[in-house]
Amino acid sequence: MHNVPPLGRHMILEVWGKPGSIPYWNMDEAAAALVQSAKDAGATVLSERWHHFGAGYGYTGVVILSESHISVHTWPEKGYAAIDVFLCGTCDPEDTLGTILGFYGAEKHSMQVLQRGLKIIY
Amino acid sequence: MHNVPPLGRHMILEVWGKPGSIPYWNMDEAAAALVQSAKDAGATVLSERWHHFGAGYGYTGVVILSESHISVHTWPEKGYAAIDVFLCGTCDPEDTLGTILGFYGAEKHSMQVLQRGLKIIY
Repeated sequence: MHNVPPLGRHMILEVWGKPGSIPYWNMDEAAAALVQSAKDAGATVLSERWHHFGAGYGYTGVVILSESHISVHTWPEKGYAAIDVFLCGTCDPEDTLGTILGFYGAEKHSMQVLQRGLKIIY
Repeated sequence: MHNVPPLGRHMILEVWGKPGSIPYWNMDEAAAALVQSAKDAGATVLSERWHHFGAGYGYTGVVILSESHISVHTWPEKGYAAIDVFLCGTCDPEDTLGTILGFYGAEKHSMQVLQRGLKIIY
């Protein structure tokens, strides 16, 4: 069996903080934090798309990168954020972790990195 | 140990078709297909964001849903598409598979479904 490198690395991040706390409903601050996290990883931001579900609810955000994307969905009442950092090329998704976990005031988190576009040649 | 249900289900889909074939560079047709796949799963489209990397290159697309998002990144020269279908609530990501695999002319694919926002209470 011979492996070639993956085309991208995709970090699946589960973040749990304080229910009701600011970062889980303040979309503008989240946008700034996720853009900063992209820069931390050396990625280039092309555009963003955000949607807030209304007072008391969470938001969805996607930052489109030259190197793929970062997305977030929040549940403020649970203090939970589902974050994906998908980066191709030489950027390392784990370089976004410090800014993201700091912004969300993560008390617990879990993380896994998936290899995307990994063609296995037998 | 007591589990509560996950907040969302996230399908990670790896699609391999013919290198250079149309769906891997034709972004407009892809947008229509992914919107249709969202409808197949009973999801509600809020907005979309697309970026094409130029002639001969692939594209990135994100469809923002009331129920989270669908994203795609393509590598036409490899005939590869990295697709994510993240749906919260009662929508089932696997209901998008028929339209997506048909559109991309998938010759091989792999799929896994991650549970997101699964809080494990001990």
